Order: sequence, then structure tokens, then C-alpha cells
Amino acid sequence: MARISEEIAPRMTGLIITCDSQGKPNIAAFSFLMPVSFEPKYVAFSVSPRRKTFENLREVGEFVLAIPSREMINVVWACGTKSGREVDKFALLGLETEKAETVKPPVLRSMPVQLECKVELFKEFGDHWLVVGRVFKEHVSKLDFQPVLHYSKNVFSTVSERIIAE
Amino acid sequence: MARISEEIAPRMTGLIITCDSQGKPNIAAFSFLMPVSFEPKYVAFSVSPRRKTFENLREVGEFVLAIPSREMINVVWACGTKSGREVDKFALLGLETEKAETVKPPVLRSMPVQLECKVELFKEFGDHWLVVGRVFKEHVSKLDFQPVLHYSKNVFSTVSERIIAE
Repeated sequence: MARISEEIAPRMTGLIITCDSQGKPNIAAFSFLMPVSFEPKYVAFSVSPRRKTFENLREVGEFVLAIPSREMINVVWACGTKSGREVDKFALLGLETEKAETVKPPVLRSMPVQLECKVELFKEFGDHWLVVGRVFKEHVSKLDFQPVLHYSKNVFSTVSERIIAE
Repeated sequence: MARISEEIAPRMTGLIITCDSQGKPNIAAFSFLMPVSFEPKYVAFSVSPRRKTFENLREVGEFVLAIPSREMINVVWACGTKSGREVDKFALLGLETEKAETVKPPVLRSMPVQLECKVELFKEFGDHWLVVGRVFKEHVSKLDFQPVLHYSKNVFSTVSERIIAE
């Protein structure tokens, strides 16, 4: 039987930054994510309850969604495999942070796209929890970049040339 | 100000097949979609209330998610731009259907991946409605295919070679 991550693949990858009630931040990689609404902007992602991100969202219902570019594939992989319970991923990966404007978790320096979000839905479906967040502030420095697309485990891809449909 | 569809792009494209209370089917293209859970399998997508798919889901809370391959880009584009209110897209695009096993909307013939789903959440967020469906039956004929990735309007892409992270 195929896994759902093989059936719907590859997927856009995002980094989700959260913090616990003490303000200690965590960063992790997700590819079960999508836009939901244009105006106001909403995004959704799905998180396993085993992840530190889940724990943090229960304490502080706010997050930053950062969209990494192709050069950051190894950062994405490290963010997806190392647990924030055991290691400070920001220090390990040399990720510098800055105070966000509308949410408690920090934003990263020099990412093409970052969205500050507050959780409006946090609900269990099967082995994951669905998170829907409303975007309160966005930081966009670049839109024309090669994204990180995820298949499963350490297998990634990026895009080919653009194709115009007729 | 950038659109959310430019900020999170490109996205995996899926075709959603629904039907009204009379059983009349519709097919439409979506790229605000993602997996939610592995076991049991759940998927989510986001739909504008102006679309026929929305009307159908209010009448019959079931759908089929079909994942198209790169050769179907023009079908995807037509499914995303023509309204099922005005035209029978199945006939127009030469899409043959078969009875599904667990849901009222039909499945297509010869698609690589199709998931029969029943809606468990249907909730408004901003200008769209979030739909979460549990997968009750899956049809997988092929996993190693080039998917259709969507930017916006008629701009699509597919994937480059696979990249192994370290």
C-alpha cells in the first residue's frame, strides 16, 4: 500500500518556527502545507503530535511560516530530522533570528518569504493535527526563487522550467 | 502586495470530482491541497464558495481526488477555468468515468492516483472553505510520474531531477 506522501508528491516545503511558553523557539520542516485563503490570507499545515512544534503550538498558538529556497535543502533536511528537544537547531544551522512584529516566535534573517500567523483551528485528524493560521504580517524579499520540493525521507527536488498551458 | 499563491508556489495539482444530489458529476482543478494524515489517510483542500465544487460538496459531502500527470496539463487548465455550470467537462475533455466503490462521485479511467474521500470538516476561512476528507478507498496504478505543479493562472511547471539531501 502506498503512503499518502508518495501519492501526493512532491510537495512545497516550509519551515515552521514556534516557541514554548518561555519564549524558547524551535524550527522544523513541513511539507503537508498549503495556502487556504487570499484575503485575508490563511495557510494550513499538518503536524504529528510527536513533534516539538505540536507541543509549542499547544502552549503558544502562533507560528512563522518561512519558505526556503533550493540552496537551503540541507537546512530543511536537518530541520526535519533533528529534534528541538535535543539540539538548538538555530545555533547548529547558523540561523539568525529577529523579533517578529505580531507573533511571539521569531522570524529568520534573509528568507525569501515569511508569514507571521496566529492559529485559528487546531484539530486532530488521524495521526496528525491540522493547523490553520491567519497571516497577520508578511515579509517578502523575493518571489522568483527555486523552492524546495519534498518527496519523502531525504529525497527532494526543485522545479523544471515553467510550462504555459493552452 | 504578493498573493498567497505566489508566496507558496508551485503547488501540486489535483483534480476534484464531486456530484450534486442528482448524481451529476463535476471535475475541477485545485492546487490548495495537501495530505493530512498517514493512517488513516486524510487529505485537505481549499475551495472558493463561488465554485460548482463548493455547491456540490454542500449537497453531497464526498469527493474523489485524482492526481494528474504532466501530460494532462491542458486538461488541468481546462478543468480549472471552465465551469461545470456551463459545460460538461467530462465530455469536452474526453474524460471517461467509472463508478467509485465507496463514494457517489465517479472515478476517472486511467489516472495514476485516485482517492475516494468523505468530508469530515467543511469550514470557512477568509474567502475560501477548508475541506478535510478521509480516504476510504484508493486506486494507485503508478507512483513514479511527473506531476503537474501550479504557479498561478496558466503557468505550470513540473519537477527537475531528484536531489538527495545530506
